[in-house]
Amino acid sequence: MPTRLDDMYAVMRGADLTPDGAPVSLGDVTLLAPLRPGKLLGVAKNYADHAAEINEGVPAEPSIFTKLVSSVTGPAGPIVRPHYTRQLDYEGELAVVVGRTLRDASPDDALAGIFGYTIINDVSARDLQAAEPQWTRAKGGDTFAPMGPWIVTVDEIPDPQDLAVRTWVNDELRQDGHTSQMITPVADLLSWCSANFRLEVGDVVATGTPAGVGRGFDPPRYLVPGDLVRIEVERIGVIAHEVR
Amino acid sequence: MPTRLDDMYAVMRGADLTPDGAPVSLGDVTLLAPLRPGKLLGVAKNYADHAAEINEGVPAEPSIFTKLVSSVTGPAGPIVRPHYTRQLDYEGELAVVVGRTLRDASPDDALAGIFGYTIINDVSARDLQAAEPQWTRAKGGDTFAPMGPWIVTVDEIPDPQDLAVRTWVNDELRQDGHTSQMITPVADLLSWCSANFRLEVGDVVATGTPAGVGRGFDPPRYLVPGDLVRIEVERIGVIAHEVR
Repeated sequence: MPTRLDDMYAVMRGADLTPDGAPVSLGDVTLLAPLRPGKLLGVAKNYADHAAEINEGVPAEPSIFTKLVSSVTGPAGPIVRPHYTRQLDYEGELAVVVGRTLRDASPDDALAGIFGYTIINDVSARDLQAAEPQWTRAKGGDTFAPMGPWIVTVDEIPDPQDLAVRTWVNDELRQDGHTSQMITPVADLLSWCSANFRLEVGDVVATGTPAGVGRGFDPPRYLVPGDLVRIEVERIGVIAHEVR
Repeated sequence: MPTRLDDMYAVMRGADLTPDGAPVSLGDVTLLAPLRPGKLLGVAKNYADHAAEINEGVPAEPSIFTKLVSSVTGPAGPIVRPHYTRQLDYEGELAVVVGRTLRDASPDDALAGIFGYTIINDVSARDLQAAEPQWTRAKGGDTFAPMGPWIVTVDEIPDPQDLAVRTWVNDELRQDGHTSQMITPVADLLSWCSANFRLEVGDVVATGTPAGVGRGFDPPRYLVPGDLVRIEVERIGVIAHEVR
């Protein structure tokens, strides 16, 4: 039974999943992120209603960006607001965990190469995202990627385009989307990536966020210390974390 | 004695370096990249003469970008020109290998946290770098980061700002720079990064390129299949790789 962060890689490579200890109650443990991704990729504007709310068009091709892998934290966070932003925002997303090397993969082969799915909050500093040409700081701050609560393996999610994605801030429903609304669906997204660069075991691809981010409100409603963010993706579960 | 790519992490954490086998001639082996970085970061326009040759100003703060870690290849390459670019370019650079976690580190503490130095070619697709908002493809293609030939530990490089950096293409000297010309020197660069996000054991920071890249010529002189790129950094060595 995997006990350390790197052990998920052993599981993905086929290690025995039989528990080797006594059962532990979920309430008695703190869940870490289910893995440390090799690469952590995101896709900008993959839901038309989100592109519209930020007054931008939909790109002709998937617009892929990178989050620093050191931004990954557990599903319970917390998100720590760094000194360099006052426009901290949430993005609830379905994330794909790649289970084998994909290079020039067809959409069908890409789908067959998925190990499982998890939930991510693609935390973003909107002021820096607008001010700096590359999103290294805007998307890559420490704690900017709460992830989990676990990985649901592909066999339990027959269709990644049939999942509700919802985000609440302090119990107010902010995002109420559905993966059927994705502009580039999961299979095509991974296929496109693999035509441009190698995807590898343990890479994580966050698949974009639906409408309802803080920046989309008028006036914008950014996260402040004390806020509680809760993201639910159907068939996976819920992650909830506080802002500090 | 480390024999696999991940073993450099054991070395950085203090594993015994005593050889455990018979000596092997360097000519009899193919060197891989000395490690798979956790994060692979670069800094844009860190030499004034390079910023000038591409008609851009010097940013007020370090402009950090990310290269996909899957772009790393051995010092002998080859670089494979992907289908999506006809403006492939070289950037010879000193690269820093981080040896311990750095968070809010002073320049002195940052310098003390370096494990060693290596050479990198920060291969860039200039057409995509201009056309796409994020440099994921432009900087992150497979084979876009030949690295090596080894890591020289800090004790052998007392001053990282006193190193010649030279790049040849087909035996023509194209870049003839010196790390004393860096706008943000190594210690300040790592300190700045650490004030914004965590640096970790095995992170690699490419420190920018001096003047003389292909884009800087009029007309530009991009890499084409068959070209041989050779990069020398004083006190470290030479990497040389062909374009295919």
